[in-house]
Amino acid sequence: MNDIRMKGFARRSKVEDAIAWVDSVVRCLPKEDVPLAEAAGRVLAEEVVSRVDVPGYDRAMMDGLALLAADTAGATNYQRLAINIIGDSFPARPFDGKVTPGTAVRIMTGSPFPAGADAVLPVEQVQFEEKTVYVCGEVPPGKHIGRRGEDLAVGAIALSAGRRLRPQDVGLLSSIGVPKPPVVRRPRVRIVPTGNELLPPGSIPSEYRIVDSNSPMLRALVERDGGRVICSDIVPDDPDQILAAMREDVDVVLVSGGSSVGEEDHAPQLIAEHGLLAIHGIAMRPSSPAGMGTLDKKLVFLLPGNPASCLCAYDFFAGRAIRQLAGLPSRWPYRKIDAPLRRKLVSVVGRLDYARVAIVEGHVEPIAISGASILSSTVRADGFVVLPADCEGYGEGTMVEVFLYDTIASS
Amino acid sequence: MNDIRMKGFARRSKVEDAIAWVDSVVRCLPKEDVPLAEAAGRVLAEEVVSRVDVPGYDRAMMDGLALLAADTAGATNYQRLAINIIGDSFPARPFDGKVTPGTAVRIMTGSPFPAGADAVLPVEQVQFEEKTVYVCGEVPPGKHIGRRGEDLAVGAIALSAGRRLRPQDVGLLSSIGVPKPPVVRRPRVRIVPTGNELLPPGSIPSEYRIVDSNSPMLRALVERDGGRVICSDIVPDDPDQILAAMREDVDVVLVSGGSSVGEEDHAPQLIAEHGLLAIHGIAMRPSSPAGMGTLDKKLVFLLPGNPASCLCAYDFFAGRAIRQLAGLPSRWPYRKIDAPLRRKLVSVVGRLDYARVAIVEGHVEPIAISGASILSSTVRADGFVVLPADCEGYGEGTMVEVFLYDTIASS
Repeated sequence: MNDIRMKGFARRSKVEDAIAWVDSVVRCLPKEDVPLAEAAGRVLAEEVVSRVDVPGYDRAMMDGLALLAADTAGATNYQRLAINIIGDSFPARPFDGKVTPGTAVRIMTGSPFPAGADAVLPVEQVQFEEKTVYVCGEVPPGKHIGRRGEDLAVGAIALSAGRRLRPQDVGLLSSIGVPKPPVVRRPRVRIVPTGNELLPPGSIPSEYRIVDSNSPMLRALVERDGGRVICSDIVPDDPDQILAAMREDVDVVLVSGGSSVGEEDHAPQLIAEHGLLAIHGIAMRPSSPAGMGTLDKKLVFLLPGNPASCLCAYDFFAGRAIRQLAGLPSRWPYRKIDAPLRRKLVSVVGRLDYARVAIVEGHVEPIAISGASILSSTVRADGFVVLPADCEGYGEGTMVEVFLYDTIASS
Repeated sequence: MNDIRMKGFARRSKVEDAIAWVDSVVRCLPKEDVPLAEAAGRVLAEEVVSRVDVPGYDRAMMDGLALLAADTAGATNYQRLAINIIGDSFPARPFDGKVTPGTAVRIMTGSPFPAGADAVLPVEQVQFEEKTVYVCGEVPPGKHIGRRGEDLAVGAIALSAGRRLRPQDVGLLSSIGVPKPPVVRRPRVRIVPTGNELLPPGSIPSEYRIVDSNSPMLRALVERDGGRVICSDIVPDDPDQILAAMREDVDVVLVSGGSSVGEEDHAPQLIAEHGLLAIHGIAMRPSSPAGMGTLDKKLVFLLPGNPASCLCAYDFFAGRAIRQLAGLPSRWPYRKIDAPLRRKLVSVVGRLDYARVAIVEGHVEPIAISGASILSSTVRADGFVVLPADCEGYGEGTMVEVFLYDTIASS
């Protein structure tokens, strides 16, 4: 019997204890400076203070005439007032004289506002004739002028630390002369798909060999959560090679497969020997053979080889860690909806259930699955319902909260 | 007066007419095959039919013993039944004999299920002693076996055309041996920032020159919407150079700045001369000087140079086109919430308003802005409210629909 080690888990940790362990060990990574073209979606590591006024000068907010508002008093289409044009102001080509009563400067939107004037009369209220320009409407003083620094003044905080940069935030950083904003470094991740039966992604499955589906899935999940996959080469069921892969220079290791307590489940033992196996075996379904720990200061997650279990264990633990390392909120990036159950959803007390569901005509339809390995159950699913460990299930018609797998919100 | 052309828009198109024009001209782009590592988030151009059974063979769904269920009848921890182990089945290393009454094969999760057996007894219900193995629990026939093809059968549709690939979908494609799924090609986009006053992103603004903030913002928006920016080099206010930039080999051109009817607003005239200027001037605020048309079969959008107007015009028209070219839904990728107004929101009848708002303690706070150019108003904003053209505004306390700028859903 000594050629095969077979035993069950002596006891399983609670999901909340595993989550608490993750939260206790993760810290936001240090900063790196990235070009603006790569900054969207990244998290600011430090607040950004503006070194310049925006705008840097008073400017016109409309095309029209820069003039004295008093010179427009009483003007209408029927009572036009002639005005003397003394020059033009274009963007970066300002008028360098001074506007005096009875005179005006043609000005384009965004162009420097000339000295002496106090308003812009929009072009719609100006009539241009052969030799004469007429004012055909009134403006109050100050109208249509963008004042220096009104958008953002020197020394003001442009953006706070911890902000996930949106497209317009990147635009703002560009406008205030920040070429490479300081953002939280992306966690570097080694995916370690284990199993002698695995063929690399891109292969055709044949006989008793299957194609690695977990590492392409995990790669997409890691990137969604702000991480970067350094390597995802398959590693055979050999302790030395698994240990070497787990020791590569990364922030997080995701071991896929071989996470349980069977003969060829080497990784848990290796972590226990060379690092700290903090959690192994969790009271949940699927993913009960999941585990986690630390090795050489990096975080290691043991994800079951079954694709649905792998997704579930990633979602509960590894994704949470990667998001926090990347400076993102720990919570799921899934949209939530409330909807009634179309039929009952049963659960066993004592373990948490991650029940995949479809949304059918506004109702929640649990997906029938005979085993955790059914990848297509997660593909057919629109999302999942979490049933806590103390829950026996919910009856037909119960309103439940569904986390939708689509991470892009839709309106 | 002939050195400067100054006139207002004769009339402005309705927003819905501009949207209808966009929808009438865009078509989903043709397919390209991409590696799995780049497939997440892309849109399937064709349905994918499985060429293989998944799993490809009957397999164990648990670690344990493959045996005849009848041999477990009546077994408990107190009434153990000895069984004769005749071999092992590991992943990709099947047992090639046959299980007969009174015998069992040790089997690992995912390993080929041996002939003769009809169930897996989980390892938790097995006791291993020095020389003997005992069955300590019962299983019914068929238990813990994953049948060939039960996940997906040869010839079944694995994924339908039009689906935006999620991480688990990429995993499924890998498992059925699809190395390069056929996805909708990403629209190639030329951003044409115009203006002699512009400095390239990464510069420090100085005197009357400002740093291009629109192209970094637009780049992030285009990528969010499934497009790919080919070039965003600044083009001076010179008709020949602007025309040459608009004629580059892309699917969509986004001209930023020079979109109105002023002296240096060349792009509208160029499109009218060399292509079709379908819409120019739109009854909305901001973005009224926006326009759109076609040139050499590509779509050209004229986005005002003011950053907030640029964002608004992108969101209403250009983004909608890019998403549809990429095979995505036309709708905004913004999450919606309903919340009450903290103070009144006024609007002028006859034009649509894109009012930027902050969410403060669950209430909607309109952001005070003196002009459309205020980039930081879009940075301070959490989202926006759309007030239709026939709306005079909403009173304090009115429930309004807010589109949130965060495109990542949060739970």
